[in-house]
Amino acid sequence: MINVGVLGATGAVGQRFVQLLAEHPWFKLTTLTASERSAGKLYRDVVKWRLDVPFPESIGTIRVSPTSVSSLKDVDLVFSALPAEVAKETETACANAGLAVCSNASSHRMEPDIPLVVPEVNPDHLALIDVQRDHGRDGFIVTNPNCSTIVMTLALAPLRGFGFHSIHVATMQAISGAGFEGVPAMGIYDNVIPYIGQEEQKMETETLKIMGTFEQKTVRPAAYRVSASCHRVPVIDGHTMAMWVDIQEPVEKVKEAFIRYKPPIKGLPTQPKESVHFMDDPDRPQPRLDRNRGNGMTVSVGRLREGIRFIAMGHNTIRGAAGASVLNAELISSKKYL
Amino acid sequence: MINVGVLGATGAVGQRFVQLLAEHPWFKLTTLTASERSAGKLYRDVVKWRLDVPFPESIGTIRVSPTSVSSLKDVDLVFSALPAEVAKETETACANAGLAVCSNASSHRMEPDIPLVVPEVNPDHLALIDVQRDHGRDGFIVTNPNCSTIVMTLALAPLRGFGFHSIHVATMQAISGAGFEGVPAMGIYDNVIPYIGQEEQKMETETLKIMGTFEQKTVRPAAYRVSASCHRVPVIDGHTMAMWVDIQEPVEKVKEAFIRYKPPIKGLPTQPKESVHFMDDPDRPQPRLDRNRGNGMTVSVGRLREGIRFIAMGHNTIRGAAGASVLNAELISSKKYL
Amino acid sequence: MINVGVLGATGAVGQRFVQLLAEHPWFKLTTLTASERSAGKLYRDVVKWRLDVPFPESIGTIRVSPTSVSSLKDVDLVFSALPAEVAKETETACANAGLAVCSNASSHRMEPDIPLVVPEVNPDHLALIDVQRDHGRDGFIVTNPNCSTIVMTLALAPLRGFGFHSIHVATMQAISGAGFEGVPAMGIYDNVIPYIGQEEQKMETETLKIMGTFEQKTVRPAAYRVSASCHRVPVIDGHTMAMWVDIQEPVEKVKEAFIRYKPPIKGLPTQPKESVHFMDDPDRPQPRLDRNRGNGMTVSVGRLREGIRFIAMGHNTIRGAAGASVLNAELISSKKYL
Amino acid sequence: MINVGVLGATGAVGQRFVQLLAEHPWFKLTTLTASERSAGKLYRDVVKWRLDVPFPESIGTIRVSPTSVSSLKDVDLVFSALPAEVAKETETACANAGLAVCSNASSHRMEPDIPLVVPEVNPDHLALIDVQRDHGRDGFIVTNPNCSTIVMTLALAPLRGFGFHSIHVATMQAISGAGFEGVPAMGIYDNVIPYIGQEEQKMETETLKIMGTFEQKTVRPAAYRVSASCHRVPVIDGHTMAMWVDIQEPVEKVKEAFIRYKPPIKGLPTQPKESVHFMDDPDRPQPRLDRNRGNGMTVSVGRLREGIRFIAMGHNTIRGAAGASVLNAELISSKKYL
Repeated sequence: MINVGVLGATGAVGQRFVQLLAEHPWFKLTTLTASERSAGKLYRDVVKWRLDVPFPESIGTIRVSPTSVSSLKDVDLVFSALPAEVAKETETACANAGLAVCSNASSHRMEPDIPLVVPEVNPDHLALIDVQRDHGRDGFIVTNPNCSTIVMTLALAPLRGFGFHSIHVATMQAISGAGFEGVPAMGIYDNVIPYIGQEEQKMETETLKIMGTFEQKTVRPAAYRVSASCHRVPVIDGHTMAMWVDIQEPVEKVKEAFIRYKPPIKGLPTQPKESVHFMDDPDRPQPRLDRNRGNGMTVSVGRLREGIRFIAMGHNTIRGAAGASVLNAELISSKKYL
Repeated sequence: MINVGVLGATGAVGQRFVQLLAEHPWFKLTTLTASERSAGKLYRDVVKWRLDVPFPESIGTIRVSPTSVSSLKDVDLVFSALPAEVAKETETACANAGLAVCSNASSHRMEPDIPLVVPEVNPDHLALIDVQRDHGRDGFIVTNPNCSTIVMTLALAPLRGFGFHSIHVATMQAISGAGFEGVPAMGIYDNVIPYIGQEEQKMETETLKIMGTFEQKTVRPAAYRVSASCHRVPVIDGHTMAMWVDIQEPVEKVKEAFIRYKPPIKGLPTQPKESVHFMDDPDRPQPRLDRNRGNGMTVSVGRLREGIRFIAMGHNTIRGAAGASVLNAELISSKKYL
Repeated sequence: MINVGVLGATGAVGQRFVQLLAEHPWFKLTTLTASERSAGKLYRDVVKWRLDVPFPESIGTIRVSPTSVSSLKDVDLVFSALPAEVAKETETACANAGLAVCSNASSHRMEPDIPLVVPEVNPDHLALIDVQRDHGRDGFIVTNPNCSTIVMTLALAPLRGFGFHSIHVATMQAISGAGFEGVPAMGIYDNVIPYIGQEEQKMETETLKIMGTFEQKTVRPAAYRVSASCHRVPVIDGHTMAMWVDIQEPVEKVKEAFIRYKPPIKGLPTQPKESVHFMDDPDRPQPRLDRNRGNGMTVSVGRLREGIRFIAMGHNTIRGAAGASVLNAELISSKKYL
Repeated sequence: MINVGVLGATGAVGQRFVQLLAEHPWFKLTTLTASERSAGKLYRDVVKWRLDVPFPESIGTIRVSPTSVSSLKDVDLVFSALPAEVAKETETACANAGLAVCSNASSHRMEPDIPLVVPEVNPDHLALIDVQRDHGRDGFIVTNPNCSTIVMTLALAPLRGFGFHSIHVATMQAISGAGFEGVPAMGIYDNVIPYIGQEEQKMETETLKIMGTFEQKTVRPAAYRVSASCHRVPVIDGHTMAMWVDIQEPVEKVKEAFIRYKPPIKGLPTQPKESVHFMDDPDRPQPRLDRNRGNGMTVSVGRLREGIRFIAMGHNTIRGAAGASVLNAELISSKKYL
């Protein structure tokens, strides 16, 4: 068992980390950090548990530490659920202190020597860890993409062989993506908000890095043109997206690619049976019915039509956030980077 | 004052017709038809009024007639809120009997001699009325497009000068578009349904006819490639759509086109002050806040970005249905077709 | 293992039965009935699965039978998810044919020789099974109450010792209680519907029977005055209710009664660890966060205030419907009535 | 025309004041105050308009002042939409400076010499203005009750003659009651929150003062026992409440009292045609359909049943907040207190 910690354990993503790590077969959750105000108290006394799964009582008795490197003496790996503005410095300090950092924050994603990884899509990019070590760092940082980007790249992974170049994507994103307090009910109820700060830029740039090629110690970005339009809709969990990809093959061949898709990894505890699930039903996937497929780690794809057009949907706070980081950690661990 | 009737006056669109016609300056609503079961009773006793505006008491005392030509002896013009399967035959019978029919049903929209009109976009297509008369009909049928198509074509109208050819559109459509009973709450609450029967086809074909050119007694369809992806979201009224149009001009010129746009009609009672309202705010238009602009007849456009990408939003049961038919009737009347 | 069947297996409650029975340790689900239209087809081909849990593939290959006694030759016990109007006759026929019937329908609940049972509240009422047998029936019918009544009586069970007589209850009920198609989205979104047909009467009469005393082969109803006001709110699952009970003891003693409560049954597979869970938090229970406690079988109680006032909340389609019937069947089985 | 101002004009209630005063026949809105940060700027540049009615352009060019007495030199009457913690001191300062203050804040409601008024219920309590003047104040403060209390007391007003003593009330309150940012979407979507801070206490105490008797320069509180249970539900506007009142008369007589009710005031511009509207439909009132009755100033009552039980519903930010203050100001003005 590897001792792990969670940075920012009381927030929405932090709670998801706690949920996923409470009974993890490889990782033992021993350290939880939060703001100074909570430090020194029991986790169960400071967290306002807002997930609809039971609170893991065994974790409740962990005493919360302040968010700093010195709190992490007993752990080898740390998951970061920190907000971007805090994450940059803290994560760097952790990596410099010899820790493996699996981060869900956006701060380091686009740095040239930091892997931006979706295990089923670009596991080979983990080789950037060696580049970080060459740069003199004892530990390292590995990041996972933005929630929408994860869903989109998983849906694109089975289609790589078709050699597409242009992607249009319109998202219908869940309110949980903005954190618990992020969206006032008066703003989104009976409404669509056609704007999510920085989301389109993230989808347009992160996708190129993830789908890029690792060669000569660096990632050459994919030569795609991604044009995104991002919208918030009144859904609790699950980002749905309408995608157009300029594939010239008939629909049937694309369908076959989805159905036959096998990811290049296997045997990781959090990895779902199917990373991409193809649906033939005329009106699926739907977030409420399909977001929990594969314990929230499967991306569902459907409504494949000529165009090539289709719908992709995945759970934004599991597959698109905490679960993504945990799967990255499992990949790192299985590749003996720890 | 012109005496008018409403076919199918008890349903969701029928109620909107009643609301819009109750105090119309040109039209006097004298006849309401419904199913045999309701015929002979007072409108107020058979309608289950479900709009959030007060029931127009003056209309309540009209005695409902069965839906047939013989019920329409006193009227010159009739609005059809009939479901498509019933509309085809009934509307034809009405037109043959000398009535002007303004229909919201889809049955006749794509027939070559029947105008499919959005008054601000293609008022000249009304000339097809003469073609119908040449074909020996006493009356005529004029149709308005599907609700999503109306919003989209109004948003495209100011951009015609740019000579675009390709349109991608992803809709986020309101539940009222399916009628009062059309969408079960268990289906759409906390959910997105990425499918609306026939909606994509309608947007892809109707748009070409509306934006086409009237010449030599027929409409030559516009040479666009429209690719639509249609989705239902938990919004009561107001269809929002993310649009991409292959315009090569800079964003500023497109913005100017939206702001300077003047429709080719004026002075109609139901016509809003602005047919297309451009918004500079980063997060608008939003259906809950903007759907009632111009009494529900204005299409709001915003989030204009390079691509060219933007958001269009309009009230689907007013601008996209009953109000569209009423505005058509006003145009017909002002053009002396009655 | 006891072979069991589900009557009406394709509807909302039927699907919950299938979910709960798919891997039951005591019951083997072998028979599923539905309308004539579906009979003869595989369950997976006729059911439109609408639960947010994965479809149980092993059940999918059961061939659906028509809803009639002759379909039930291989089973000893049958769960009824039939609508009330069909249930009356079919359930009687099943019981007369020697089957044990656990019914969620309302048809037989108030008949004098038919037990209306919540296992934690009135397990002794099962003795009415013997009365049915005395009346010459080979099998028997056992019913569970209406969903709101179950939640309320479980919340009252710990308070019996206080000798109250008057109950006021205002419910805020989930849309799933009306079945999948029961509530149009246009009716309930951004709305409260202060009326649910027959619900108040059910709460007011069923409660008296359940909380009544079994003596001399009959149930003497409790002498309570229950006054209910029932409302539908935009919640998917979970009935919340504000209750007033005329208990004259201080709040602390009532709290103790909730905390110390031990139901008179144990060891049933579907029985939750806590039948009634008391919450001290100022703003709980809440349906979205608490409905799945105890796999949906626990009733959560909180906001206990002088009055005596408190809030009770339970999952209406699990604890309040299918789960209630399954728990009844387990109780019957453990008491050797089969 | 009387010059008036609004304190706290940019918030949710402040915007409602602006909406209601923009074209008021008696009051000319000349002054808007907000925080220091906004002072000196045009209202249209600092307000984030979130109402679904058009922004009143004529008000947009008013330059915002800081919230202090010195900003109010040109006005005779000021409406307070300040949060309670700020209101206490500022409102006192305004009244001492000779201004008439109509406040929606809770700070002064229960002070013995300050009227807590619903014009249709206790207009005679305005006599406390003279008591304030006796205490040496140049101006005065008049308050309106909490939103739920207003709806409840209006529903009780027609029943006064029955001499009841005990009221149970369970509310289902709209999210707008907490202000624009007050309720996170993740908190209330698909949920009920059975707690609203201080709301039950307000309903239980304010009601007694409002329904009390003015005699000998003071208000003797009504001798009712009010027991409230307050809950937030996913509704945008409109507080619905289930009420029980211990009236011993038959339902028919209570119905008559509702129908025949005539309030003791008339001719005020904001006063609706009906202050209390009785509905016979089995499933009304409903917030989405009935909240805008009487421009949001009418309380709708229905589902009258023995018990005596019934449902009351009113628009919480119009009738229950800004509209209440405006109606108070009109009453004050008509009674020549200005």
